[in-house]
Amino acid sequence: MGVPEIVLGEGKSVEHLVGILRALRSAGLGAIVSRPSGSQLGAVPALLREGVPIRVLADGRILRLEGPLGVEYRRGRVGILTAGTSDVPFAEEARVVLEELGIEVTVAYDIGVAGLHRLLRALRSVERRRPELYLVFAGREGALPTVVAGLVHAPVIGVPTSIGYGRGGRGEAALNAMLQSCAPLGVMNIDAAVPAALFAAQHFAPTGPRRLRGVGPPRLR
Amino acid sequence: MGVPEIVLGEGKSVEHLVGILRALRSAGLGAIVSRPSGSQLGAVPALLREGVPIRVLADGRILRLEGPLGVEYRRGRVGILTAGTSDVPFAEEARVVLEELGIEVTVAYDIGVAGLHRLLRALRSVERRRPELYLVFAGREGALPTVVAGLVHAPVIGVPTSIGYGRGGRGEAALNAMLQSCAPLGVMNIDAAVPAALFAAQHFAPTGPRRLRGVGPPRLR
Amino acid sequence: MGVPEIVLGEGKSVEHLVGILRALRSAGLGAIVSRPSGSQLGAVPALLREGVPIRVLADGRILRLEGPLGVEYRRGRVGILTAGTSDVPFAEEARVVLEELGIEVTVAYDIGVAGLHRLLRALRSVERRRPELYLVFAGREGALPTVVAGLVHAPVIGVPTSIGYGRGGRGEAALNAMLQSCAPLGVMNIDAAVPAALFAAQHFAPTGPRRLRGVGPPRLR
Amino acid sequence: MGVPEIVLGEGKSVEHLVGILRALRSAGLGAIVSRPSGSQLGAVPALLREGVPIRVLADGRILRLEGPLGVEYRRGRVGILTAGTSDVPFAEEARVVLEELGIEVTVAYDIGVAGLHRLLRALRSVERRRPELYLVFAGREGALPTVVAGLVHAPVIGVPTSIGYGRGGRGEAALNAMLQSCAPLGVMNIDAAVPAALFAAQHFAPTGPRRLRGVGPPRLR
Amino acid sequence: MGVPEIVLGEGKSVEHLVGILRALRSAGLGAIVSRPSGSQLGAVPALLREGVPIRVLADGRILRLEGPLGVEYRRGRVGILTAGTSDVPFAEEARVVLEELGIEVTVAYDIGVAGLHRLLRALRSVERRRPELYLVFAGREGALPTVVAGLVHAPVIGVPTSIGYGRGGRGEAALNAMLQSCAPLGVMNIDAAVPAALFAAQHFAPTGPRRLRGVGPPRLR
Amino acid sequence: MGVPEIVLGEGKSVEHLVGILRALRSAGLGAIVSRPSGSQLGAVPALLREGVPIRVLADGRILRLEGPLGVEYRRGRVGILTAGTSDVPFAEEARVVLEELGIEVTVAYDIGVAGLHRLLRALRSVERRRPELYLVFAGREGALPTVVAGLVHAPVIGVPTSIGYGRGGRGEAALNAMLQSCAPLGVMNIDAAVPAALFAAQHFAPTGPRRLRGVGPPRLR
Amino acid sequence: MGVPEIVLGEGKSVEHLVGILRALRSAGLGAIVSRPSGSQLGAVPALLREGVPIRVLADGRILRLEGPLGVEYRRGRVGILTAGTSDVPFAEEARVVLEELGIEVTVAYDIGVAGLHRLLRALRSVERRRPELYLVFAGREGALPTVVAGLVHAPVIGVPTSIGYGRGGRGEAALNAMLQSCAPLGVMNIDAAVPAALFAAQHFAPTGPRRLRGVGPPRLR
Amino acid sequence: MGVPEIVLGEGKSVEHLVGILRALRSAGLGAIVSRPSGSQLGAVPALLREGVPIRVLADGRILRLEGPLGVEYRRGRVGILTAGTSDVPFAEEARVVLEELGIEVTVAYDIGVAGLHRLLRALRSVERRRPELYLVFAGREGALPTVVAGLVHAPVIGVPTSIGYGRGGRGEAALNAMLQSCAPLGVMNIDAAVPAALFAAQHFAPTGPRRLRGVGPPRLR
Repeated sequence: MGVPEIVLGEGKSVEHLVGILRALRSAGLGAIVSRPSGSQLGAVPALLREGVPIRVLADGRILRLEGPLGVEYRRGRVGILTAGTSDVPFAEEARVVLEELGIEVTVAYDIGVAGLHRLLRALRSVERRRPELYLVFAGREGALPTVVAGLVHAPVIGVPTSIGYGRGGRGEAALNAMLQSCAPLGVMNIDAAVPAALFAAQHFAPTGPRRLRGVGPPRLR
Repeated sequence: MGVPEIVLGEGKSVEHLVGILRALRSAGLGAIVSRPSGSQLGAVPALLREGVPIRVLADGRILRLEGPLGVEYRRGRVGILTAGTSDVPFAEEARVVLEELGIEVTVAYDIGVAGLHRLLRALRSVERRRPELYLVFAGREGALPTVVAGLVHAPVIGVPTSIGYGRGGRGEAALNAMLQSCAPLGVMNIDAAVPAALFAAQHFAPTGPRRLRGVGPPRLR
Repeated sequence: MGVPEIVLGEGKSVEHLVGILRALRSAGLGAIVSRPSGSQLGAVPALLREGVPIRVLADGRILRLEGPLGVEYRRGRVGILTAGTSDVPFAEEARVVLEELGIEVTVAYDIGVAGLHRLLRALRSVERRRPELYLVFAGREGALPTVVAGLVHAPVIGVPTSIGYGRGGRGEAALNAMLQSCAPLGVMNIDAAVPAALFAAQHFAPTGPRRLRGVGPPRLR
Repeated sequence: MGVPEIVLGEGKSVEHLVGILRALRSAGLGAIVSRPSGSQLGAVPALLREGVPIRVLADGRILRLEGPLGVEYRRGRVGILTAGTSDVPFAEEARVVLEELGIEVTVAYDIGVAGLHRLLRALRSVERRRPELYLVFAGREGALPTVVAGLVHAPVIGVPTSIGYGRGGRGEAALNAMLQSCAPLGVMNIDAAVPAALFAAQHFAPTGPRRLRGVGPPRLR
Repeated sequence: MGVPEIVLGEGKSVEHLVGILRALRSAGLGAIVSRPSGSQLGAVPALLREGVPIRVLADGRILRLEGPLGVEYRRGRVGILTAGTSDVPFAEEARVVLEELGIEVTVAYDIGVAGLHRLLRALRSVERRRPELYLVFAGREGALPTVVAGLVHAPVIGVPTSIGYGRGGRGEAALNAMLQSCAPLGVMNIDAAVPAALFAAQHFAPTGPRRLRGVGPPRLR
Repeated sequence: MGVPEIVLGEGKSVEHLVGILRALRSAGLGAIVSRPSGSQLGAVPALLREGVPIRVLADGRILRLEGPLGVEYRRGRVGILTAGTSDVPFAEEARVVLEELGIEVTVAYDIGVAGLHRLLRALRSVERRRPELYLVFAGREGALPTVVAGLVHAPVIGVPTSIGYGRGGRGEAALNAMLQSCAPLGVMNIDAAVPAALFAAQHFAPTGPRRLRGVGPPRLR
Repeated sequence: MGVPEIVLGEGKSVEHLVGILRALRSAGLGAIVSRPSGSQLGAVPALLREGVPIRVLADGRILRLEGPLGVEYRRGRVGILTAGTSDVPFAEEARVVLEELGIEVTVAYDIGVAGLHRLLRALRSVERRRPELYLVFAGREGALPTVVAGLVHAPVIGVPTSIGYGRGGRGEAALNAMLQSCAPLGVMNIDAAVPAALFAAQHFAPTGPRRLRGVGPPRLR
Repeated sequence: MGVPEIVLGEGKSVEHLVGILRALRSAGLGAIVSRPSGSQLGAVPALLREGVPIRVLADGRILRLEGPLGVEYRRGRVGILTAGTSDVPFAEEARVVLEELGIEVTVAYDIGVAGLHRLLRALRSVERRRPELYLVFAGREGALPTVVAGLVHAPVIGVPTSIGYGRGGRGEAALNAMLQSCAPLGVMNIDAAVPAALFAAQHFAPTGPRRLRGVGPPRLR
């Protein structure tokens, strides 16, 4: 159908996922699997042996079935930032997906707003690559995307992460803070790293005619 | 400082707002005021008489102080859609702000998902202008952005509106539905039409060097 | 008493459940057990050996004690749809219960609103069997029941499923979206597949006299 | 298009609503307007003078623009019950809409569960008309639909009303109690009397062929 | 100090609990331990061997350290009812505590409101013992206490239990329904069986002079 | 039927309420009306003129229609306490209802826990009348019922009031604090002063035979 | 008793408040009244005429009854910051109360985190007075206290304000963000400016002996 | 940079944490690790063997890497109180951190408000050490900080703990009660013992010049 297959590993049985991957392979298509479970990861060696080519990426949080994803993007530039070190695994999911879609990524991790000087230094360094768009990951109070959107002249997308305990924990405070930001942010759901990457990628979609028929956007399955 | 002034009318006294507008005028700057109150609107004629040039837009939901906004965007194309007629005032706020920033807008209103054929017809018509980005407004169950993002190959930004009563009313269900969407959406807060317009505008920001110093993004004041 | 016994497996000890089943069997009655636990399933072979006839259905999510359920329904027709593949186990619970009650079921699974063309094709196919009523299962943003209710001329019952993470996850967004639907839906609680099937079955209840005395509706125990 | 127009008065300006009604009248169509505001009601005499035939029903909570509603239902029988007297205005909205759609309604009001004997007497009396379906309105603790569903052999639809103060007030406790009911209920949103009536009416929709094209269900506008 | 010791087992280490029990025993006092953990229960045999006399009650949910509880109540009569079988373990906690405090208890279990005739029969039977007060346990929609309070002329205390899944599950709907009841109920927190028993017991407290000094109410520790 | 009529003024039209009062008067019955609206109060003089005897109590928050209430209680003793002065109007509603039911009330107002010495002095004074039961009203943090229940040997009923702003305001924090109390409290809903009085009165209900038939508890209408 | 009287105007009748002020005046005491209503403010001229000396402060949000407040603090130094202009009225309440208690206040208003350079300039200027403690007011995303606490070496107290609409609005997001802050903040309730000032003042309380008896902390009445 | 390193153990891999500790050790710095996981604790012996000096404190809830923390505080005095025994582990975390920062701590544990006399005795004893500030830990109804703040003339910081089940459980009721307190409290998030200690420590920070550059407050990492 011409749309890239992004398969959510969560909530699928190993058999179900293996079936999907074999079917895509037979059809000559590639795919990205997000957040495979431990037992799904355990099925990879067997799949490799039977000739289904899969790469394990982002510390096992992303599987890449080799083959065309059926969608074209121009080579855009994205900056990915995180407030803390606990946000990094989510940021890495987004980085890997964007790179698989042919987009260039520059990262700066662990630059929370309680250490402004470090933040400014890191941001200046990322800006040198002139990202056209930023994905900013933050848990707890979720202030980093607001501060960044006050400093750069590019779209900033906030991705709250499920970091933090007590009231407002598990990303709730961060999500609401981003929705309430006094700077204009696009906001994703808590931990929604892959949707964030796909939304970012859409900014580099071709703008030519007839895109409504068949060559659609990525689909989460 | 080179950033456009977007002044929130809500929560400010008439005197406070008039003072801001006079100061900007003296400095030779323009501004956009969002959601002026009735008494703030009442101050417009007197301001006009003393030579502060203000246009009343979007049925009185936006004031435009003539003069440069201090920010440059390229002439992008945005599609704005609404699910119902009650969403239209919010959509109009976004349309006016985008047009004042020099961006071309195509609209299709009242195309909710309970009437799919009408929706498809309207979307096809908007697509003819090849928008580079969509703002989709919806209250109640908030399904329209998801359906649109499944059909077009461009970034889709969902803006929930405070339409609907009972559980999940006042935009809560719509906001959560957009955050949970099975298609990749950027999400704004409930009724956040002006932030949505500013976030959309950032996609048409210049990508040249040195943008970190002084020529920043719009600021909500 | 003439009412079908629908026994919830959850929260009952194995001994307690086995006792209920033996008692019903002795009384010459059948029953349906929903969501038996692993250890409850483990008791089935022993029960079979002692002559208590039990069938394991819906991938172990339903047990059927053979025997009359004590309630009469006419042979109605129900359509069951799901938005994703993760909703299928819940849909299967409903399908099995309806079929055990003598109602004909037609299904179409994995037809979410982000892929409209596939949705329309599948719905057209189900409509050929002219269902008198639809059960539509959806998690995440829960938009499918609304779209279906805008297309078919039959009662549509929305069943939110606990699919989705982050804000509005575990079925909360889907439930609220269905309650807020701009099309008239009857709504069930999250994952309430068996109550949905029983509510659907009531539409095929006999409408003759004296039904208030003794020949009541199904009872969840 | 062959669908009945159900126009929500809430949130529309008088001019907007008058425009819709004139347009429908010109097209030879009828309509139902729910919850007109005071100023919308004030426009009725002028509309009557210019020949737009409107009846004011349910104590001013429903307007009926005379003319065909574009949908066919068979003459079904519905029972409408309320727990308290404060629920009656909502019940009356549903009654009026059902009767305008050609469905027969039998009512029993103020039969809350704290007075069981009165409840049983009233229910017996309604049962004599053998309703094929029940709409049961209740605020506060919302127990009446559960008790009724335990007594009658017909689909029972619970409609929570925004009655009650303090925690769980404004219909929240009633809504959740209905979703948690130990008897199978279809549930509507709080105060959603008109959607409840439309959902009920769907049970009397024709089941013949080709209903997917054009002759759709009611649409809330 | 003359107050009975009610020790919460939850959240205490085995060593901590054993220490408390030994200290009370040395002081010649008895105690009641509620909801001991599995490892706390495992310590009972050793305590028995060293001469600390403990009885295990209510299926291991209550431990009774023999000895005076330091509080006097007159021999009152309490009725305990449950809506379902899953509420029984909580009801049994309350029964045991009340009986240890010298109060007479009559019970009727599994008499939910979806089966009114059974409910009325059971209630009539309990009423024969003329309880001075009722404890009514219910999960899910929590309607039983309201129905009972409409039938008996005695104080009715509602105890919601954490039964039920989905929205309003884990006792939330039941709690709110009891707070919203149209009959006057005293309400306890979810699963708060022991506090409910202690609150009930207070109704049988002596009303003589000087009770403010030293001979206080039970204390939860 | 022998039950006292407690009529909620809120949410009823003046005509409706007047009709109820006239009907009760004709039947030779008395009643209590809680929280009459301003326009309902305005109807009192006319009712008096036509011979319907009504007393206005508790600063206009309670109306008493003279005549028998149809229920017998023994002359019990209740203590009513409030944490602040803003809680007093609610406490007065309860006091008036209890006194109309023939129960003796002793009060101490404005004795919050931030001033312990004053609290202890006031409580000692109330204890001299040896109340058999306490109603304790508190808003904000709602700590007073817990402290009182730690000091007196009688049932303590906590009534949260809608005092306090910000998070946990309007009685939410107080309600939850009472439900979480480390002393055994019976809890009422926020501002539920009249239900609290009726629940308290039930403790003085006669305990003789046959109370299940007809001579029921108070009913809120 | 030697404690300062802080009287909450909200929720008190004019008569009640006037009575309190006259009584305090007779006793030779002063007081601070927070958030007087319009009609309470209207009573000030009459009070002045009868010789009760009252100053109106903070734009009418604070009344000061002249006279000793009965509490001693050393002359501390506090910095008060606000993120926006809408936070200023709350900040002014705190400033006035602190100054009336003899504490020195330095302010910097409208220094939100979306304009970092302005923030740093303002903070540097305030730091020159070397505050011993900061009160930082912020609504919307509430990030300013976190950023400030990352820059200064003094206790920082966050006060969320009820600024912002949509999800997380009215101070909810700001409150949770402060509770989740990655820098150590003391947090006050939403809009709790006067409690914040009193908590701050406590840092300058005398630390000598016998403070437990009588010379207590401020009391909110 | 001269700021103490407070490393959160939660959510970090053993390798990551070990890496941080080795790096700090190499740099000649000390650190405090809060809430190490079991496997992180398991890495301590190996670290000790390779010469990284770590002390295990507070029953394994705090690790202390020996070495300078890079921040100076004067020797202040803090009182730490808990309402129950389940709050003690949190209080101990705070005590250890404060003592490692050179601050003197006096404690009184298990002095809940349901036992006022014990509370007053314990508080009097702690007051003898004249704490300059109090940290008060309480779960369930969270009343202790309010009562203490009504008795002592020093700043009182409330720390809610995740003790309590049912509605308002896991610290929610306690948090809200503290935010609603009628005495001025600074409030921390649920279980936020280490942030509470750091906030308390800030009260003993040096107030000399130039503290804005480099010698900042503690940072949570």
